[in-house]
Amino acid sequence: KVVASLVWAPHQFVFRQLFESESSTWTYILGCRETGECVIIDPVLETVDRDLQVIEEMGLKLKYALNTHVHADHVTGSGVIKTRLPTVKSILSQHSGAQSDIKVGDGDSVHFGGQILMVRETPGHTNGCVTYITGDLSMAFTGDALLIRGCGRTDFQQGSASLLFDSVHQKIFTLPENTAVYPGHDYKGRTSSTVKEEKTLNPRLTKSKEEFVEIMNNLNLPMPKKIDDAVPKNMVCGI
Amino acid sequence: KVVASLVWAPHQFVFRQLFESESSTWTYILGCRETGECVIIDPVLETVDRDLQVIEEMGLKLKYALNTHVHADHVTGSGVIKTRLPTVKSILSQHSGAQSDIKVGDGDSVHFGGQILMVRETPGHTNGCVTYITGDLSMAFTGDALLIRGCGRTDFQQGSASLLFDSVHQKIFTLPENTAVYPGHDYKGRTSSTVKEEKTLNPRLTKSKEEFVEIMNNLNLPMPKKIDDAVPKNMVCGI
Ligand SMILES: [Fe+2]
Ligand SMILES: [Fe+2]
Repeated sequence: KVVASLVWAPHQFVFRQLFESESSTWTYILGCRETGECVIIDPVLETVDRDLQVIEEMGLKLKYALNTHVHADHVTGSGVIKTRLPTVKSILSQHSGAQSDIKVGDGDSVHFGGQILMVRETPGHTNGCVTYITGDLSMAFTGDALLIRGCGRTDFQQGSASLLFDSVHQKIFTLPENTAVYPGHDYKGRTSSTVKEEKTLNPRLTKSKEEFVEIMNNLNLPMPKKIDDAVPKNMVCGI
Repeated sequence: KVVASLVWAPHQFVFRQLFESESSTWTYILGCRETGECVIIDPVLETVDRDLQVIEEMGLKLKYALNTHVHADHVTGSGVIKTRLPTVKSILSQHSGAQSDIKVGDGDSVHFGGQILMVRETPGHTNGCVTYITGDLSMAFTGDALLIRGCGRTDFQQGSASLLFDSVHQKIFTLPENTAVYPGHDYKGRTSSTVKEEKTLNPRLTKSKEEFVEIMNNLNLPMPKKIDDAVPKNMVCGI
C-alpha cells in the first residue's frame, strides 16, 4: 500500500491537462515542484511520446502511472511508459481484476514529493473504478464515474447503474461543492466542471436512483470500437 | 476606453477553458464569482451554443466578448453572441483595423466584477494582436502571438516575423516566469504552458532574431482553408 506523506505543500503543486483526440481522453500530469516527482493519470498509448516530453521538459521525474480504471475505448499508455522508464510503477484499483504494480482502494493515498492523491473507490462503470482526489480537496479526477453533465456507461465490464449512482452520490457529491471535477473524457471540448455543477446540473445524476437506472439501461449505445483490443491489453496495464 | 476597477478579488476568480476541435481553437471564460460578471476570449462561431450554456449554467452574465486578433482560420463567435445577448460588447485591438464596440491598446484594462484583464499589444502575427493578462499576472492569454512551443505564422494579415519576435520578447517573456501561457490554439492536445517553459524551450523564440525571421519566412505553409471567408467576417467582429 502507498502511504501518504505527512508534509503537504500546495504551493509546490504542478498541473497539466492533456487531450487525446481519437478517444477524447483527458490525461493529467500532477507534480511536486520542490522534489520534481510527478504522476500521470490515464495516459493513452498514442500520446505517450507527447506526455513524456511534457514531463521531461517540465523537469519532472515520473513516479507512478495511475489509471482510473480498465478502459474499453483506448489502450493505456502505462505499459509503454514502464518500458521507457523502468522505475515507474503502475497503479490500478484492487477491484479491477487487472495486473498492476500497486493496487489501491478506499482510504489509500498516493504520494509524490510533498503532494498527495487520495483514493476513493467509485465502482459502477467498472468494478475497479477509482477517483483520485488532491490533498486539499480542490481537484477530483473522476475517470468515467462522473463526466461533465454525464457519466460512463454501465452496460459492459461489470457495469451497474445502481452501483454507479451510489458511488457518485456517496463518494464524489460529498466532496466540497467547489471541488473541480476533471473527467476521464469529454466529447464537447470542455475541460472541467465542479461538484456543485454536477450535483445541480448533471441530467442523469440529479434524477432519483430508479430514474437513473432506467436511463442507463436504455442508452442502447454501440460497443466501443476498440473494446476487444483494449480491454485485454489494459487488464495487464498496457502493452 | 475600459478602465480597471481598483478592487481586485483573486479568490472570486472563475475560469473555464474550452476546445473547438475543427480549428483547434482554445476559448476561455473568465468570471467574477461575487458579481457574476464574466468575459469570453476568442469564442468560435461553431461552439457559441456550448459556450453560452457553460456561462449560463455557471450562473454568470457575459459582459464582454474579447478577441485576441482578427482570426483567419475560424469565424469568431462574437457576432452571434451579441445577437443573442445584446448587452454584450465586443473588444478588439485598436490596431486591428476591424469593427468592434470597444478598442483596446497597451496599458488598457478590461474589468468584470472584481476581476481585471490587462492588455499588452503583441503584434507580428497580425497588427492587431493583443495579449490579455490577469490582474495577478498568473495567466496570459496570448492568442497566436505565442503558442505552446510555437507561434502564429507571419506570412499574411500584416504578418511580420521581426515584429512578432520583439512583441514576444518585450511583452510576454518579461512576465513572471511562472505566468501560465494560455494560447489561441494547440494542435497536440496541450492546454497550457508557462513563460519560463517558452523562454527556454520554444524552438523558434529561443533563437536569435535573425534566425527566427529566417525560420518564419521559410515555413511554406498552405493558406488557411477558411481565410477568404473568415477574415471579412472577423473584420466586422463576426456575423
Ligand atoms: Fe471507461
Ligand atoms: Fe490567428
